[in-house]
Amino acid sequence: MPVSTLAADQSVRAPLPVLGRDVTVPLVTGGEVTYAALDYAASAPALQRVWDDVAAYAPYYGSVHRGAGYLSQLSTDLFENARRTVAAFLDCRGTDQVVFTRSTTDSLNLLAAALPDGCEVFVFETEHHAALLPWRGARVTCLDAPSSPRQAVETLERALADRDPSPSSRLRSNRGGPSGPALVCVTGASNVTGELWPVRELAAAAHAHGARIVLDAAQLAPHHPVSVRDLDVDWVAFSGHKLYAPFGSGVLAGRADWLREAEPYLAGGGASRRVTRRTDGGVDVEWHDGAARHEAGSPNVIGAHAIASACGALTEAGFDTLLAREEHLIRTVREGLADVPEVRFLSLFGDDAPRVGVLSFVVEGWNSSHFAAALSAEYGIGVRDGLFCAHPLVRTLLGGDPRSQGECGAPEAAPGEKSLNAVRVSFGAGTPDEHVERFVRAVRELVRDGARWNYRTVDGRCVPDTSA
Amino acid sequence: MPVSTLAADQSVRAPLPVLGRDVTVPLVTGGEVTYAALDYAASAPALQRVWDDVAAYAPYYGSVHRGAGYLSQLSTDLFENARRTVAAFLDCRGTDQVVFTRSTTDSLNLLAAALPDGCEVFVFETEHHAALLPWRGARVTCLDAPSSPRQAVETLERALADRDPSPSSRLRSNRGGPSGPALVCVTGASNVTGELWPVRELAAAAHAHGARIVLDAAQLAPHHPVSVRDLDVDWVAFSGHKLYAPFGSGVLAGRADWLREAEPYLAGGGASRRVTRRTDGGVDVEWHDGAARHEAGSPNVIGAHAIASACGALTEAGFDTLLAREEHLIRTVREGLADVPEVRFLSLFGDDAPRVGVLSFVVEGWNSSHFAAALSAEYGIGVRDGLFCAHPLVRTLLGGDPRSQGECGAPEAAPGEKSLNAVRVSFGAGTPDEHVERFVRAVRELVRDGARWNYRTVDGRCVPDTSA
Repeated sequence: MPVSTLAADQSVRAPLPVLGRDVTVPLVTGGEVTYAALDYAASAPALQRVWDDVAAYAPYYGSVHRGAGYLSQLSTDLFENARRTVAAFLDCRGTDQVVFTRSTTDSLNLLAAALPDGCEVFVFETEHHAALLPWRGARVTCLDAPSSPRQAVETLERALADRDPSPSSRLRSNRGGPSGPALVCVTGASNVTGELWPVRELAAAAHAHGARIVLDAAQLAPHHPVSVRDLDVDWVAFSGHKLYAPFGSGVLAGRADWLREAEPYLAGGGASRRVTRRTDGGVDVEWHDGAARHEAGSPNVIGAHAIASACGALTEAGFDTLLAREEHLIRTVREGLADVPEVRFLSLFGDDAPRVGVLSFVVEGWNSSHFAAALSAEYGIGVRDGLFCAHPLVRTLLGGDPRSQGECGAPEAAPGEKSLNAVRVSFGAGTPDEHVERFVRAVRELVRDGARWNYRTVDGRCVPDTSA
Repeated sequence: MPVSTLAADQSVRAPLPVLGRDVTVPLVTGGEVTYAALDYAASAPALQRVWDDVAAYAPYYGSVHRGAGYLSQLSTDLFENARRTVAAFLDCRGTDQVVFTRSTTDSLNLLAAALPDGCEVFVFETEHHAALLPWRGARVTCLDAPSSPRQAVETLERALADRDPSPSSRLRSNRGGPSGPALVCVTGASNVTGELWPVRELAAAAHAHGARIVLDAAQLAPHHPVSVRDLDVDWVAFSGHKLYAPFGSGVLAGRADWLREAEPYLAGGGASRRVTRRTDGGVDVEWHDGAARHEAGSPNVIGAHAIASACGALTEAGFDTLLAREEHLIRTVREGLADVPEVRFLSLFGDDAPRVGVLSFVVEGWNSSHFAAALSAEYGIGVRDGLFCAHPLVRTLLGGDPRSQGECGAPEAAPGEKSLNAVRVSFGAGTPDEHVERFVRAVRELVRDGARWNYRTVDGRCVPDTSA
C-alpha cells in the first residue's frame, strides 16, 4: 500500500479530538464507562482545538468597539477577523454580510424580521421548527413532505409557479416575473433523517421564479462543505453549538440588501450611530448599516472566536477526510442493524439516500423514551428521543398524518402499536468508532434481551427506577 | 487592631482574581507593562473562578432538554440550577421568572416585545441606548435629565400623573388608577457617570400610578446587591459580560404574566410544545409557558453556567467587602485628580453623589479619543472614549443641548473649545490598586507634560502615528 493511501486511510479512522472524550459515566448495572456522545445533531462537544483557542484568548478578552485599550483593539480585530473567517468558510460572495447571532433559530428569526413588506415564504412541512415557525409576519405556504429530492424541487416549482402573475397581469406589468418578493427556506440536511436536500436545484427553482432562498445549514455545515456561491443560495444560517463551538453564537450570512433595509433586529447600543432628542421631546435614531445594524449590545466575542476556530479546524482536517470517516460510521450503523427487523429507520427519500451522520428510528414494541433511557443507563450512550423539534415531519415518518396530534414523550407503545416518537442517533468529526460500535451492540442486545432494568417517567424524563 | 478588623481591611485591598491579570502589553515608548483593564463598564474580565467553573464543566457539556444521555441530563440540570442561582442572587419573588437572554440589550428588547397592547413607556433621556430605544411599538415619553435623584422622582411622578384619568373619568371607571398599562425603564447606575439612581423611590412612584418598572442593572449588579423584593421592581435585566462572565448570556428576571401572555420572542424549537398542520395546510403552534417560551433554540448553557458562577463568587466575596474596596478606588481617582483643574468629571447629581466605579471626564484642551489613545499607548491603560451609547446624556453633560448634533469620535477640540466626546474610566472587583494609581499618575503627567507621541485617526481609531 503506498504511503499516501495508508496515511489517508489512517486519518479516516482518527476522530478529531473533542472535549469530554475521556469522561466516564456510571451505569445503572454497575461500573463506569466512557460516555458515548451520540446526540451531535442537538449539540456537539467542543473540538479540543476550539477549546484551546478560547482558552488562549480568554486572558486577552477585552471590551470591543470603542474601547481604546490594547486588549480592546485586539478583541475588536479578533471579532472582525472571525467574520472574515466565517465568510471564507461559507465561500460567500464579496458583497455578502456575516451577522453573528446566537443560533440558527436566532438567525432565521432575524431574517424573518427583515423580510420586505408583502414577502411570501415557502417552506416544507419537514423543516425543523426553527425554519418552519419564524415567518410570523409573512404569508407562509407550507409544502407537503416530498418523497424524493426530485419531488421536492417539483413541489417547490409548482408552488412558486402558482404565485406568478397571470399572463395578462404579466403583460400589464411588463415584468415577466412574480408580483412581489418571496423567500424559500430549506434545510441542507434533515435534523431527523440526516438526508441531504437538493439545495442547488431548489435555489435554481427559487431564482427562476424571482424568489430568494435561505439555507438552514445547522445540520449540513458540521458535516459538509457549504459554498454560498456554488449552491447559489441567498443566505445561510448555522449554529456554533452544532459546529463544535458551543459558546452561544450562530451565524446569518448572505445578501446585504434586505438586512440593510430592515429595522434593526435589536434596538440598542452598537446598532445606533447617532441618537438625538427632537425639539418635541422625542428621540431620533440613525442606525448603522452593515452587520452592526443587527448586532446591538456587546457582541459575544468568545462565541464568534470559537466559531472561527471551528471553521479553521474543519477546513484544515479536510471535509473529504471527515466525510469518508462519517460514511464509514453511517455504514457501521446501517450494516450492523440490517438484520434486526425490529429496528425501522425513518426516511423520506429512501434508505440509501445520501445523508449526514444523523439517523432516527423506532424499535417495534418499545417506547422510544424507554429505549433511549436504556441506552444511557445500561450502556453510557447519549442519544435523543422525541419529535426533534420537527413535529409534522416525525409524525409523517411514523406513519401518522402530519395533521394528527401527538406529543414529545408519548406514553408507552404496546407491542404492535405505532410509536408516537422516535430515537435519534447522531455523530460527527469527534466520534470514535467504538461509540458507534457500542451503539450497534447495545441496540442488538436490547432488542434481543430487553432492558435489564425497570424505568419510569419522573418530571417528563424516563429514568431507571431505583425505588425497588 | 482586632483580628477581624485586620482581616476585613486586608480583604478590602485584595481584588478578586480575574483572567488577564498578568497580561503585558507593549508601550509605544518602549518596553512592556501589565495591562490595566479600566473599561469594566463596557465589559469586565472573567473572574478566575468563573473561568475555572466553565473549564471544569466544558468536558461534561451536553445537549440539553430531551437528550437522554447522562451528560445531557447533567447539562439540563446545570442550566436549570443556573436559573435558580440567578433568582436567589436577585432576591426574586417566588413567582418570578428568570429568562436567559444574550445581554441586557436583548433582555430589554424581549420585554419591549412583551408589552401589552397600548402600553405607554416612560424613560429618561439619560439612559443607555439599550434602555432608551427598544420600545418601538409603544408610545414613549422621554423625560428630561434630572439634576438630582429627588428631581428624577418628581419628574416621573409628574409624567405619570399626567396620564392618570381625570377625576370625572376616574369616578366613571371606579378604578382610581391609570387608563392602561405603563412601564417605567430606569438604570440602577449610570453607565456614564456611575451615579446611583433612586430605584426604590422610582418603583414606588411607578406603582402608585399603576405603572410597572424594569431596572436596567447592567452597571449596578456587578457592584451592588440587587434585591427585586427590596427595590420592589417588576423586572431586572443584566449582562453576563459586565458581571465577570463574558460568555454571551444575559438575564431578564421578573413578573411572569406579561411574558406568559406575549408572543414568543423567538419562534422555533424549545419554545414550541406542539406543532401540527391544519387541514387547510397551515401550521398551528402551541407554545410553552414559562421561560422556555422566550428561549427558542439550544440555550447557551456555558453562558448561563458562567453567570451563575459569577453570582456565587460575588455573593461569597460579599458585597460589603467589594463595595468598601470600590469606594477606596473611587476615592483614589477623585482625590488623586482633585487638584488638576483641567480634568472635569461628568455628573448629573453632583460630584459627591453615590456611585459605582464608573467615571467619565473631559480634559481641557484635549480631544478625548486622543487622550484615551495616549493612556493606552504610553501607559498600557485601557479606558473608553466616545458617547458611551448614551448620546443625549453625554451631550447634556458636555454642556451641549441634548437636542444638538454630535458624534462618537469627534474631531480634535481646540484649547478652550467644548469637547464633543468624553473619556470613561471604570473598574470593579478585579481591579488592583496599582491600575487605578497608574491611571491617576498617567492623567496628571499627560495634562502636565502632554503626550510623548503623535497620534492620528485610522479607520475611526486613534492610534500612535508610527509613520514618522
